[in-house]
Amino acid sequence: MSKKWIYLFSEGNTGMKDLLGGKGANLAEMSNAGLPVPPGFTITTEACNAYNDLGQKFPEGLWEQTLAALKVIEGQTGKHLGDPNNPLLVSVRSGARVSMPGMMDTVLNLGLNRETLEGLAKLTNNPRFAMDAYRRFIQMFGKIVMGATGDEFEEIMDEYKAKTEGGQDTDLTTEMLEEIADKFKEIIKVETGKDFPEDPFEQLRMAIAAVFDSWMTKRAIDYRNFNKLPHNWGTAVNVVTMVFGNMGFDSGTGVAFTRNPATGEKKLFGEYLLNAQGEDVVAGIRTPHPIEMMAKELPEAYKQFVEIAKRLEEHYKDMQDMEFTIERGKLYMLQTRTGKRTAAAAVKIAVDMAHEGLINRETAVMRVAPKQLDQLLHPTVDPDAKVEVLAKGLPASPGAASGKLVFDPDKAEKLAASGEKVILMRVETAPDDFHGMVAAQGIVTARGGMTSHAAVVARGMGKCCVVGCGELNINYEAGTVTVNNKMLQEGDWITLNGSTGEVLNGQVPTKEPEMSGNFKTLMSWADEFRTMGVRANADTPHDAQVSRDYGAEGIGLCRTEHMFFEGDRIDAVREMIVASTLEERKAALAKVEPLQQGDFEGIFRVMDGYPVIIRTLDPPLHEFLPKEPEEIAGLAKKMGISAAVLQEKVETLAEANPMLGFRGCRLGIRYPEITEMQARAIFKAAVTVKKEGIKVHPKVMIPLVSLVDELKLQEAIVRKAAKDVQAETGISFDYEVGTMIELPRAALTANEIAEVAEFFSFGTNDLTQTTFGLSRDDAGRFLPFYVEKKIIKDDPFQVLDQEGVGQLVQMGTERGRSTRPDLEVGICGEHGGEPNSVKFCHRVGLNYVSCSPFRVPIARLAAAQAALEEKGY
Amino acid sequence: MSKKWIYLFSEGNTGMKDLLGGKGANLAEMSNAGLPVPPGFTITTEACNAYNDLGQKFPEGLWEQTLAALKVIEGQTGKHLGDPNNPLLVSVRSGARVSMPGMMDTVLNLGLNRETLEGLAKLTNNPRFAMDAYRRFIQMFGKIVMGATGDEFEEIMDEYKAKTEGGQDTDLTTEMLEEIADKFKEIIKVETGKDFPEDPFEQLRMAIAAVFDSWMTKRAIDYRNFNKLPHNWGTAVNVVTMVFGNMGFDSGTGVAFTRNPATGEKKLFGEYLLNAQGEDVVAGIRTPHPIEMMAKELPEAYKQFVEIAKRLEEHYKDMQDMEFTIERGKLYMLQTRTGKRTAAAAVKIAVDMAHEGLINRETAVMRVAPKQLDQLLHPTVDPDAKVEVLAKGLPASPGAASGKLVFDPDKAEKLAASGEKVILMRVETAPDDFHGMVAAQGIVTARGGMTSHAAVVARGMGKCCVVGCGELNINYEAGTVTVNNKMLQEGDWITLNGSTGEVLNGQVPTKEPEMSGNFKTLMSWADEFRTMGVRANADTPHDAQVSRDYGAEGIGLCRTEHMFFEGDRIDAVREMIVASTLEERKAALAKVEPLQQGDFEGIFRVMDGYPVIIRTLDPPLHEFLPKEPEEIAGLAKKMGISAAVLQEKVETLAEANPMLGFRGCRLGIRYPEITEMQARAIFKAAVTVKKEGIKVHPKVMIPLVSLVDELKLQEAIVRKAAKDVQAETGISFDYEVGTMIELPRAALTANEIAEVAEFFSFGTNDLTQTTFGLSRDDAGRFLPFYVEKKIIKDDPFQVLDQEGVGQLVQMGTERGRSTRPDLEVGICGEHGGEPNSVKFCHRVGLNYVSCSPFRVPIARLAAAQAALEEKGY
Repeated sequence: MSKKWIYLFSEGNTGMKDLLGGKGANLAEMSNAGLPVPPGFTITTEACNAYNDLGQKFPEGLWEQTLAALKVIEGQTGKHLGDPNNPLLVSVRSGARVSMPGMMDTVLNLGLNRETLEGLAKLTNNPRFAMDAYRRFIQMFGKIVMGATGDEFEEIMDEYKAKTEGGQDTDLTTEMLEEIADKFKEIIKVETGKDFPEDPFEQLRMAIAAVFDSWMTKRAIDYRNFNKLPHNWGTAVNVVTMVFGNMGFDSGTGVAFTRNPATGEKKLFGEYLLNAQGEDVVAGIRTPHPIEMMAKELPEAYKQFVEIAKRLEEHYKDMQDMEFTIERGKLYMLQTRTGKRTAAAAVKIAVDMAHEGLINRETAVMRVAPKQLDQLLHPTVDPDAKVEVLAKGLPASPGAASGKLVFDPDKAEKLAASGEKVILMRVETAPDDFHGMVAAQGIVTARGGMTSHAAVVARGMGKCCVVGCGELNINYEAGTVTVNNKMLQEGDWITLNGSTGEVLNGQVPTKEPEMSGNFKTLMSWADEFRTMGVRANADTPHDAQVSRDYGAEGIGLCRTEHMFFEGDRIDAVREMIVASTLEERKAALAKVEPLQQGDFEGIFRVMDGYPVIIRTLDPPLHEFLPKEPEEIAGLAKKMGISAAVLQEKVETLAEANPMLGFRGCRLGIRYPEITEMQARAIFKAAVTVKKEGIKVHPKVMIPLVSLVDELKLQEAIVRKAAKDVQAETGISFDYEVGTMIELPRAALTANEIAEVAEFFSFGTNDLTQTTFGLSRDDAGRFLPFYVEKKIIKDDPFQVLDQEGVGQLVQMGTERGRSTRPDLEVGICGEHGGEPNSVKFCHRVGLNYVSCSPFRVPIARLAAAQAALEEKGY
Repeated sequence: MSKKWIYLFSEGNTGMKDLLGGKGANLAEMSNAGLPVPPGFTITTEACNAYNDLGQKFPEGLWEQTLAALKVIEGQTGKHLGDPNNPLLVSVRSGARVSMPGMMDTVLNLGLNRETLEGLAKLTNNPRFAMDAYRRFIQMFGKIVMGATGDEFEEIMDEYKAKTEGGQDTDLTTEMLEEIADKFKEIIKVETGKDFPEDPFEQLRMAIAAVFDSWMTKRAIDYRNFNKLPHNWGTAVNVVTMVFGNMGFDSGTGVAFTRNPATGEKKLFGEYLLNAQGEDVVAGIRTPHPIEMMAKELPEAYKQFVEIAKRLEEHYKDMQDMEFTIERGKLYMLQTRTGKRTAAAAVKIAVDMAHEGLINRETAVMRVAPKQLDQLLHPTVDPDAKVEVLAKGLPASPGAASGKLVFDPDKAEKLAASGEKVILMRVETAPDDFHGMVAAQGIVTARGGMTSHAAVVARGMGKCCVVGCGELNINYEAGTVTVNNKMLQEGDWITLNGSTGEVLNGQVPTKEPEMSGNFKTLMSWADEFRTMGVRANADTPHDAQVSRDYGAEGIGLCRTEHMFFEGDRIDAVREMIVASTLEERKAALAKVEPLQQGDFEGIFRVMDGYPVIIRTLDPPLHEFLPKEPEEIAGLAKKMGISAAVLQEKVETLAEANPMLGFRGCRLGIRYPEITEMQARAIFKAAVTVKKEGIKVHPKVMIPLVSLVDELKLQEAIVRKAAKDVQAETGISFDYEVGTMIELPRAALTANEIAEVAEFFSFGTNDLTQTTFGLSRDDAGRFLPFYVEKKIIKDDPFQVLDQEGVGQLVQMGTERGRSTRPDLEVGICGEHGGEPNSVKFCHRVGLNYVSCSPFRVPIARLAAAQAALEEKGY
């Protein structure tokens, strides 16, 4: 007896994907769930392999089993292949384990020929439809199965369309279509040397062979090589009865969701058309009816459909997106799949289903894609508003904001102070523009990528931002911007959509985010399952408060240098940089110290009871000085020094590669008084708030360490400052000293470094730059090209490169804990708010992730999912 | 019975360093070799530990054993501690396993008091000497043993010196010295509350305790912590009889080498003084006599000394540096140690000793420090010449060169072409200056460090170079340089000493290097033992020839971009960069292709039979364009385009961090036509020389790979070019495609990369930059400070950081070979010519190192030593 090559839908199930392919297994599953799936069968992947092993020959018994399976479905449908009165028509399509481009497309309406098409015309009462179906079948079969180039098919179509008044496909008459069908057959004969097969059985045999052949085409092989899929999987072949929704007004077709995919409301949601095919619903020529109307028009089928929808949801335990056809009163389910939904719907459905007992809370938490949450956390452009899109840039920081156009950060600050809403537009931003960015509702730049200064700072503030909007021609002097021949002036209203990158004209209405009850419920479940901590990157008391509101459990990164730009303190910072003696430098630092102390006090108060990790000065000093001659002259005047001296200082500090230059702890080692001032400010702030009854736990973090002795030297300064402050105030406090791990050498020698560091925080932004040898600021010239050409899967500054950078994170963690088993390890790069990266952090055993305040909920959810995935969810 | 705490010199040997300390073990070894060492004994390190464990108390039996040992040496010398007529004086000093700063200094002349000093005065017939010795002993003992601050000692000395005419120490009379000694004792009494001990036995007991105490001083503990030395080693105490060379004209003192330390000649070399102490020889007040004269003046002692010198050399099997004293006709050997020597002497001695059968060839190869060879491979400033040092910079590239001062590279080229010798002086150099550097005898810059452009390029060319010479105030417009108030003009002669960093006035005579027979012999032995290959970094046929002359076995790195600057071809390169369409770019590349082909042909001819690794274009494109507005305007005119367009192109190409920017294979991926052109030029050159009968083996190396798919794309282009050239010419050739491993990510994913790469070459310059997050160009602001403060041991751009970067080299090698076991792995960074780094490369199993041509012999010797070290040498 020959091998079993064929499974009827009633014989398979969803677990048999290897043998039946994904499509075949799912059709079988639906069928066995008792759903009215059009009868059909699946030829196994083993048959495909056997066929190819035999040199493109059907293995023994395959054709016989095909005919037998056909008999079964003829029995189920009452139709027969090739029967002119009641023809069985089938679709034939490939179906490997996973969906795979490059494989054979569907051949529909197989079984049509001169005779059966008459039967179809009668049954549908639509001769034109039947003839058009025949024409399409010839075209499709000729190209896909018989290998005709098909170039002339379109020429002939055009020729005939030119003869009609409308000139459209739909204007072709039945007669014309018949002539076209004949011509198509001639072309196929000429091109392939073969007659078009009129025998439906021959059609079927050829179609099956064509699917098998398609597994071995160059395109399919290349695809599998590229995606590292094995060549011995083979493809299955699905043969399924055709059903028609256009056989009169007892027929129809439609699509529906078991719940509302926009809101999540628990109510059938969909639409349908009577006497129509699926493509009519999509084409939009006729307006479909809401699914509820079916209760009146096709009450029996509707009742059955409602029942099926309920069963499907219960079976798959998720909201379903279904396609159905009613052929002469009989309902067929053509497809069901998990329905796509908005973030709001995803949250509501997950929480509702858990409350309904359909799924448990763990599953509910797994159901919402963390990335989607972003939609819920920012204002959005009112979807009902009419908008005029001026230009489109990169969606650097989500949300929506309207305001008056301003080009100058000082002006932005001034206007905002007087109560105006402003949008700051710059060619690009620099640290100098920080105060203007703080004041603005949103920021838009003409240059820069997703990780440009504007983008990073805006995301940090949770502020809407569009960058790299090249169409903007900004004229600072004139105070105008020209975009696509339209000129806007300072003060004109614009609106930004940071989620799409659109720059909109005028004041477009926006909607505030709602932290709905369902959202809170879901997050509370997430926190229950989550084992990894989530902290925030926050530099001000305000940001700290936002982080707490979003559920952050402390601050993972407080960048002290951002404080340097606030108000007038930049003046003292600049004095410090320009100082030529230790005394001058100390005098300038003495001015900064109380200001920094004040900032830290504010942050400690908000973070009562939570850890706060404060990083000592990191950026190269030249970032605090102006670069243009005029600016330098102005500053020199203000500082009361000669412009030449300042110019020289600026030149002396200039660097070929600032990213790899005189920054991080290198500054604090060369100028220990800077670290000392910062440590004193931190500890004096700790003492002040401790007196107020605040629970304070400062953790001082040294940046850019590559050598353990760098850390030792900085640690000694910090510990001395702590001792001094304790002696001066008579008040003791707990604190820790740790380090960023942001250079490959630090990760490689983490065992040594952990002998000194009490905690680690992976600075994956810089670690990515150095591991790849890739500057964030310069990558724009080729990185998008790399992503587009799939040389790299994702932008490694957005999604952690687990394969490369991730090795260093894992290695650094393991080696660090080898010498200090209780070492706290976290991450504070941009990746700390990216779901896949968060999950990676959980897997390698990090204690926490730290991210922008607005990404905290995303990180919480991703961390919960990582914990659940570990448990097999 | 108590433990044995004391070993006489006759009881110890060199293997007992743990117990007797380094000094004690060596004195014992000499003594047992039958040498006339002054009698003495060593108190063990165990005694020190016991003393400290007991809370600063002598362990049981120690003092009794000390007295017993003293008896023995009294018997050997006929002198007695405290005997006024024939007093025994001793030195007491510490001696741990390794020499350790922070430990107790020597106390000399212990045993002196009011009475014994009279005896010493009589014996030396020099009352002043005896009184001065007494004064010094009180001062030394008071400070070191009794803990007096000693601040007032100098005041008193100054007071008495002021009373003399000359005002020097030597002008003090015996009487004055006596008064001073008394005052010193008073000070000690006041400061320490204790009388100065007159009893020699009490002196000895106190001195021993002081040595033990010095092991536990803060300074010593800090030193051990810093150097990771265990605290439980303890220190030994050496008590040695004092001998005096100033006891009349049958006494004397001197130093001698068993062979000439400057030339290596096999002949006793040294000098001595009659009736003198060791310090008299050093002080230079009297001119010592050549050692040969001793044959007449002290024939017996001389005969004995010659005999001893011979025995010492035979015993230690190396050239010895000896100190001796003759006390009343009796010879004492005070010290013998391996003698320091010049490179030339080192080579001659090693080869001679091997020929004499004293050592084997392996040992001879181990005897020469590879670094020293540098002295032999470059011209040197004639040591007899009188020189005027104008300024001192960093010794960037060794050698010496004289020439006329020129500030402009074009002028340098022109003058050189007309036969003049020139020295190019620049504030700093850029790739644009390359032709001027080629033309010059040497290069000197005012700015830049050991790895600046000038330094790297000059070393590559083996050309003398001084960099970072900050005292030079160069005025390009005036054509002058001012240095320490002296002004030189263009055309004035100067001389550079690249081995010391000195800039000398005028034309100083230099000596050419001699590749002597001994050098060649030693190198041939090295090659015999060496298992790792040595190749050279060479970009021109000339450099390739130099490499071959120095013994390179192929080219490990040929940088194609250096060729871009030669002659007029930079014009075509710039056209290519400025091109705005693919066609324009291809047209420009077509002009470069035949020129590159010509270069490769020349190199292949020189490297007949050896592999040549050619790296495709690496630097960012903006390096090929000018930066100053005037230069841009000039070039634009020459190119026939508008200055604005060129200016914009320059601005577009500017990068924030060029090191991490659009360079390496990123260029070849974005502009595949560049890689294609270079590959074609390589393969067409291969075909041309193959027709001439040359054995050619090109290896194409792709730079800056971080993702395996980058390499795949570039490999495909190279392989296609090879196929095309083979098809066009009908001639086949072998070739390979490999990659640089110069980014951490490449090392981390080397297993994947080796699936494509046929060979690896570690680019440790860039790998060091990225692993440390440290730009070579910017490190000058803090790296020297780091080295000075020992935050890092060596400049990691000069000596490979084995602990960090080395991990990636090892990891990359192992992982690469895990997927391609026969993977060829080399290194082509600057480290390839640095001995410690070369040895590391051997240990981690690299196939070869590649370095500057002039460093090839150094690498050969280091590689041989690494192989021998593995065998236990």
